[in-house]
Amino acid sequence: MSAPGTDVPSTPPAPLDHFWAVVPAGGAGTRLWPLSRAAAPKFLRDLRGEGRTLLQETVDRLEPLAEDRFVVVTGAAHRPAVVRQLPQVAAEAVLAEPTPRDSMAAIGLAAALLERADPDAVMGSFAADHVITEPAVFAAVVTTAVEVARDGWLVTIGIEPTHPSSAFGYVQQGEDLEGHPGAARVASFVEKPSPEVAAGYLASGGYRWNAGMFVVRPGVLLDLLAQWHPQFAADLRAIAADGSRLEELWPGLPRIAVDHAVAEPAAAAGRVATVPAGFGWEDVGDFDSLAALLGADGADAATGPVVLGDASLVEAVDSTGLVVPSGRLVAVVGLDDVVVVDTPDALLVTTRARAQEVKAVVAALTESGRTRLT
Amino acid sequence: MSAPGTDVPSTPPAPLDHFWAVVPAGGAGTRLWPLSRAAAPKFLRDLRGEGRTLLQETVDRLEPLAEDRFVVVTGAAHRPAVVRQLPQVAAEAVLAEPTPRDSMAAIGLAAALLERADPDAVMGSFAADHVITEPAVFAAVVTTAVEVARDGWLVTIGIEPTHPSSAFGYVQQGEDLEGHPGAARVASFVEKPSPEVAAGYLASGGYRWNAGMFVVRPGVLLDLLAQWHPQFAADLRAIAADGSRLEELWPGLPRIAVDHAVAEPAAAAGRVATVPAGFGWEDVGDFDSLAALLGADGADAATGPVVLGDASLVEAVDSTGLVVPSGRLVAVVGLDDVVVVDTPDALLVTTRARAQEVKAVVAALTESGRTRLT
Repeated sequence: MSAPGTDVPSTPPAPLDHFWAVVPAGGAGTRLWPLSRAAAPKFLRDLRGEGRTLLQETVDRLEPLAEDRFVVVTGAAHRPAVVRQLPQVAAEAVLAEPTPRDSMAAIGLAAALLERADPDAVMGSFAADHVITEPAVFAAVVTTAVEVARDGWLVTIGIEPTHPSSAFGYVQQGEDLEGHPGAARVASFVEKPSPEVAAGYLASGGYRWNAGMFVVRPGVLLDLLAQWHPQFAADLRAIAADGSRLEELWPGLPRIAVDHAVAEPAAAAGRVATVPAGFGWEDVGDFDSLAALLGADGADAATGPVVLGDASLVEAVDSTGLVVPSGRLVAVVGLDDVVVVDTPDALLVTTRARAQEVKAVVAALTESGRTRLT
Repeated sequence: MSAPGTDVPSTPPAPLDHFWAVVPAGGAGTRLWPLSRAAAPKFLRDLRGEGRTLLQETVDRLEPLAEDRFVVVTGAAHRPAVVRQLPQVAAEAVLAEPTPRDSMAAIGLAAALLERADPDAVMGSFAADHVITEPAVFAAVVTTAVEVARDGWLVTIGIEPTHPSSAFGYVQQGEDLEGHPGAARVASFVEKPSPEVAAGYLASGGYRWNAGMFVVRPGVLLDLLAQWHPQFAADLRAIAADGSRLEELWPGLPRIAVDHAVAEPAAAAGRVATVPAGFGWEDVGDFDSLAALLGADGADAATGPVVLGDASLVEAVDSTGLVVPSGRLVAVVGLDDVVVVDTPDALLVTTRARAQEVKAVVAALTESGRTRLT
């Protein structure tokens, strides 16, 4: 999904005044089992084999813009690991959700805290488990988005589609935004389309992938939320005003995504803008996209499978796909587009085409009580 | 390759006077890597998951006929394991070959020792790495073969072919043998044929698989050997007469199979008989035949892959084939006729159709000096 297009800026990214990076670090990554586990989800893993986890890479690419202004929101169980992985983020800026409450609660909590902490804050929310292959382009796009957000817009970053994917939602662009070259109003958000509809979107040129990256002033976000979910916004602000009320109010917050809670109705109300982006982006949702990210597309038996990890542990004969070794030798003979993921306590063998179905294994393990392995 | 045909005898097998079972326990089993290793070849493994190794099963099925009259010939490196696995065989009856010298040397050494130890001996030689699924039929066939061998014949047991295999050599039957109903002269031994030629053999009804099972009086075997390889026979008899000469003479013995050294020329000289056999027989040469032995043929996604080992360690989604777990969970998603073999230090993933090519992995490991894994 590498998207050429936007030129790499000639100046290095500069810190943005009052810009706060909010990083929701959640999601089980079930389709990446057994690499991703409930106890060690994909954002805590080095999925590119480059020595940094997805979470660390997310913070790395935001640090030139946000400096030390971070808020990370994660599950209580993962907070110690997140704090360990991010020495540059103050431990008190790593918030623990008592229970999972989807993205509106996580991002809204950060917004409520920032609204009080910095009246001039502009926050940008970026999931901890995406891969962005052109961080300089990313920084330029975020810089533009922050400028637009200062004017009171809820800004979503719209990824230029490179193929008619039916795996992502889309942003339908509306009219150009005055005073902000390149930015546009958002006419609507559309759910994951059929492949045929996606092909039409690609051909029209007026649609972009919704990567769930929102840039907004915290008060704007909460005021928008208050229009459609007033109690939700009030509870978040109450928690921010008095942290001791977290345990009391959190369990009652709705489980809803920020897209549905705010972005979609706000777009209908003409309050959402989009900044187009052409940086390479991958949500690394399953082993098929991980294989693509690592260069498996177009490989043949001569090049062999791509290896995430120590390639000297892999002996491949006439095979392609993805192999993730884990200390033991892995021999693959005569299989195309195979996926072999070795871990100390569980092994997965599948194909790139069937990679989505890995979640059925996790479901079977959960159902049979073998949660130690999930 | 289960071969119905011969009826199961109604009387249990009885010990055969002066019958000695000779068990050559050799062969690396490279195509069964990583289950079979140089340090732990397939005859030392429980390949059926029934709690007995192939070597132990070989001795089990011969014990009713041979009682305690066994000679096992194995590599020096494997002798301790063989002795441990066979408490019912006297340790001094487990001979160690100083170096591998193929089957004529191994069987000939046993013959030379037995010729001196028991002038009335009839020996039967049975490889330690075959599976026989109808031991009662096997016992009846061996009983007949021993009777024929007492009359001075070199007797080979000819397995009734169930399909036109090109993986085995064949025995061409000649005229019936007088005085021994069911037995016949051997017209010739033929090498592994093409599939077309094998189909002709099957249709003709006059050919049987050569399973390398020979029954013969030791002196007859050595006298036959002496006709074509006089020095070989003399050296074997010299070793038997004075065990201290083993180290001196063994390295000079020819590397040749008993089939080529004796059976083929003896057949041409009219000295070989065959007893037909219809017991289920498998040489378990690779994971494809192991999968068949364990019932993988005709399985579908509903039945799933056959499992050698703890089936609770295997989670299969829409898959068939063979899985050999080794303590860790093995999940297989969307693969037909897959072969997954998990061991503590090496993992193999292939298909039944490509199972023969596993030896290429072993060759690559050997070439790169990773013999610890071979």
